[in-house]
Amino acid sequence: MDDSKKRLTPLSELGEFGLIDKLTSDIKLKNSSTLVGIGDDAAVIKSKKDLLTLVSKDLLLEGVHFDMMYAPLKHLGYKAAVVNFSDIVAMNGKPKQLLVGIGVGAKFSVEAIEEIYFGIKTACKIYGVDFIGGDTTASASGLVISATVIGEVEQDRIVYRKGASPNDLICVSGDLGGAYIGLLILEREKQAFKANPDLQPELSEHDYVLQRQLKPEARTDIVEILAKNKIIPTSMIDVSDGLASDVKHLCKASNTGCIISEEKIPIDQETYEMSKIFNLVPSVSALNGGEDYELLFTIKQSDYEKIKEIAEISVIGYMVDASEGERFITNDNITVDLEAQGWDALKRRQSEIPDNGS
Amino acid sequence: MDDSKKRLTPLSELGEFGLIDKLTSDIKLKNSSTLVGIGDDAAVIKSKKDLLTLVSKDLLLEGVHFDMMYAPLKHLGYKAAVVNFSDIVAMNGKPKQLLVGIGVGAKFSVEAIEEIYFGIKTACKIYGVDFIGGDTTASASGLVISATVIGEVEQDRIVYRKGASPNDLICVSGDLGGAYIGLLILEREKQAFKANPDLQPELSEHDYVLQRQLKPEARTDIVEILAKNKIIPTSMIDVSDGLASDVKHLCKASNTGCIISEEKIPIDQETYEMSKIFNLVPSVSALNGGEDYELLFTIKQSDYEKIKEIAEISVIGYMVDASEGERFITNDNITVDLEAQGWDALKRRQSEIPDNGS
Repeated sequence: MDDSKKRLTPLSELGEFGLIDKLTSDIKLKNSSTLVGIGDDAAVIKSKKDLLTLVSKDLLLEGVHFDMMYAPLKHLGYKAAVVNFSDIVAMNGKPKQLLVGIGVGAKFSVEAIEEIYFGIKTACKIYGVDFIGGDTTASASGLVISATVIGEVEQDRIVYRKGASPNDLICVSGDLGGAYIGLLILEREKQAFKANPDLQPELSEHDYVLQRQLKPEARTDIVEILAKNKIIPTSMIDVSDGLASDVKHLCKASNTGCIISEEKIPIDQETYEMSKIFNLVPSVSALNGGEDYELLFTIKQSDYEKIKEIAEISVIGYMVDASEGERFITNDNITVDLEAQGWDALKRRQSEIPDNGS
Repeated sequence: MDDSKKRLTPLSELGEFGLIDKLTSDIKLKNSSTLVGIGDDAAVIKSKKDLLTLVSKDLLLEGVHFDMMYAPLKHLGYKAAVVNFSDIVAMNGKPKQLLVGIGVGAKFSVEAIEEIYFGIKTACKIYGVDFIGGDTTASASGLVISATVIGEVEQDRIVYRKGASPNDLICVSGDLGGAYIGLLILEREKQAFKANPDLQPELSEHDYVLQRQLKPEARTDIVEILAKNKIIPTSMIDVSDGLASDVKHLCKASNTGCIISEEKIPIDQETYEMSKIFNLVPSVSALNGGEDYELLFTIKQSDYEKIKEIAEISVIGYMVDASEGERFITNDNITVDLEAQGWDALKRRQSEIPDNGS
């Protein structure tokens, strides 16, 4: 069937309440703590004894956090959900409920909003999260996606950013820098497309890093692996700003310094090679790229034997006394200050991303 | 001191983390259920036994929900908080925690964002709510304020939209239509200012309706009065879309019809007189204006004796069988179908507001 010929439904045809019904009528609640989802003035949750409730929210704005030119709508919905789940995971918790508010311009069709919702619902399904609040409103400007996630964690298993001590090992899950390289490739193809709209984008060889950028995952699996191995991290954060910035968050909250070894930072082969093509030192993509949504955490040295066999986790350094500062040992064995450029959305401009390597 | 000469601080001077520190360092947590507020990946809440957790969120967008030309920033912050509190109140609950994400354009100064935060913090102080999550990001377009509120309610006191039965009395707190008339006055003065920028706005005589529009309140006091008088409504909603639309929400959720009497609708004198000046039937401001954030609820007839002495509550009609539909008895004693134009932001355009009465 040729979908491109399907008539798109203007928003005005349904109105606000009709749209909400259409988007949410197929939502089913699965978690026992979710008493009431969409449809009343507030959603209702019943917490269990000895469980703490975790809440986090994120605002994704067109032109700042994503570019509609290359971010498919269903991936945007998926990512908006998952980056929130990741915040709950970073507290060693499990995401349970999600609320999403969407602001859309008049140019949006009902089908376009359904795409975003499809992504949100898919993420909720995969992560076992109940979608309990949805609200779609007009936006006079760009697309706005505002998500709030509720999670839960056993009182004796919660992990904060604070809590690390000198000598604790610094660990990270998965690999870093891929999401940033994915963004650079998308930006490069966008510039090429602008210069010559007949050009086909060269994306097929870059599946891994593009997925890291467009459709990241929250590491709920790592939380389970840690629990199974009886490890409770002493501090934890998810890598959203970049390794350098996020390890500094742990140090600041825990009142420690740190030493990170460049050679220990896990970097995927594709990230490594594309970094070179973009004239970037690969570890810089990891340190300053951000958006990898891996877990960065510290453990007691006594837990090293438990963690060293887990393939998905790398030990990249250790905490030191705050007076020793935050340090980085390069592959040439030179020790320098750890610099965080970070993913500082207030300073960042898309145009600052190097337009290189084509 | 002449504030107008004060140098404003550009956002780039502080960066994202510096800004968050500046905005949130004076926040103190007061509710025992709030374990951790701003500063980690998620806020942490400890619910008490037999209490249900309520969650609601709202998205306020420049050019759709507010106009920067006449909405002072501190009032915007206050309103963003209070309209969320109102959703918790509408479940017969108490708001306890608030998270707010703000997207601001590059033109914004640090001081402008502090104004918004001042409004949010003031609302939190007045309502005894902890401000537990704040996030400020760049916006490529207009101002975006996204708030999420967490509240609590005893399990045996929660009130939904569903639950009303035929013969239940329909009640409303305070008075209706004022917020809409306030909006019309602000729009009128904006048009006059555009035509002649030397003109001083004529606002001083309209304090009440302007406050209803710019700085609404959530009726936590009504929830307390109801509790004190041992009344648990059978259904409840807050009046955000307009009386007609909101009573229809109760009817739909409860599977009832309703009869509303025009003569019983509480309308303030100022709303009444200004409606006439705008060539509006006063009850139409109440039925279709919205944003009054009064409580609309139903009670058993047996509770009538308890409610009739409460000055702040008016009985405006009663529920009937669904087959009888939703009906409106005019002051001329003519019965018509209750029409809901509603506050349907997807259909609404500011330009549709009558530009009248100047």
